[in-house]
Amino acid sequence: MNKIITIGREFGSGGRELGRKLAEILGCAYYDREIIAEIAKRTSLSEKYVQNVAEHKPVIPFPIHTGRTFWAVIPDYGQEVQKEQHDIIREMASKSDCVIVGRGADYILRADNPFRLFVYSDMPSKISRCRRNNANDYDKGEEMSDKELSRRIEQINKARSEYYEFYTGQKWGLPLNYDLCINTTKNDPIEIAEFVAKIC
Amino acid sequence: MNKIITIGREFGSGGRELGRKLAEILGCAYYDREIIAEIAKRTSLSEKYVQNVAEHKPVIPFPIHTGRTFWAVIPDYGQEVQKEQHDIIREMASKSDCVIVGRGADYILRADNPFRLFVYSDMPSKISRCRRNNANDYDKGEEMSDKELSRRIEQINKARSEYYEFYTGQKWGLPLNYDLCINTTKNDPIEIAEFVAKIC
Repeated sequence: MNKIITIGREFGSGGRELGRKLAEILGCAYYDREIIAEIAKRTSLSEKYVQNVAEHKPVIPFPIHTGRTFWAVIPDYGQEVQKEQHDIIREMASKSDCVIVGRGADYILRADNPFRLFVYSDMPSKISRCRRNNANDYDKGEEMSDKELSRRIEQINKARSEYYEFYTGQKWGLPLNYDLCINTTKNDPIEIAEFVAKIC
Repeated sequence: MNKIITIGREFGSGGRELGRKLAEILGCAYYDREIIAEIAKRTSLSEKYVQNVAEHKPVIPFPIHTGRTFWAVIPDYGQEVQKEQHDIIREMASKSDCVIVGRGADYILRADNPFRLFVYSDMPSKISRCRRNNANDYDKGEEMSDKELSRRIEQINKARSEYYEFYTGQKWGLPLNYDLCINTTKNDPIEIAEFVAKIC
């Protein structure tokens, strides 16, 4: 059976850096945004749409009232995207040793006994990591105050938490759902990858 | 400043074994039951009494009703024991590098920037570790069923959680209060000590 490492991570905690370094040390495949690109290819949907759908729990549509009630009919590919994501994660895990970031992969692959990491940190550390990395996940151009950035980070993490809980029925970040939880407030994600590689 | 490692641990998770091995690898002092023995020495109270008081949050006494209300007057050395425990932990940390198990040491020594571990595991793993180790913390002679042992483990961990929250105002086992949370369900505490020694 392949060695599979899954990484749940708070936005801004350096989980992606840790995962990339870990895959480099182990000489194995690394999957993160690649999953989105592959879903987009298979479904012919745009990467932006797929990313949005693949990282949020479904929104229950409400009728729009304008005098009399009617429904806004927007095509919903949510289920299709989720199915593709599920299949792709299973395919990737069956192909070779790999590190998979996010997307409830720990739960999808639970029968394969993955080594499950959760990476987190305190808010000041998340803010400074976001600024340092000029992260892609929030609008780079926007000049955000610490307070605004903090709120944005909280929103993203809330969406991750809701997504995880919706699709797995488990609590995101609850230690018992992971083999190791790493606080990157003081621990450097790159340095710690060296040590994780020895125990996973 | 000395290197201080504090270990919060669920009963039955192997946190003590991990701590002992870690101290052995680092060649530093290890404090666990030694703290109780030292408090008993300084206060002239029995070790059994000290252990009970030092590991439980205070109980608010209720009046006993027998026709008319009166109070059972039992001498309470709780505050004295807590003060001694606090002083001893600070003394130990100032003396040399050390590993300190339990007793909210992570909070007491927060100004010294300790490396804070939390060790936990799932219930079946806790039960089998308790049986394997013939742990001192529950009555050895007693032939407990898995259900009874599970209830006993839960009680002990509930007391640890309440004690920690009462004296620190923080949530026991909440990842953000620790630098590393280690699930010993699959990870071997002795093996993982080697890894922790390199990053702490």
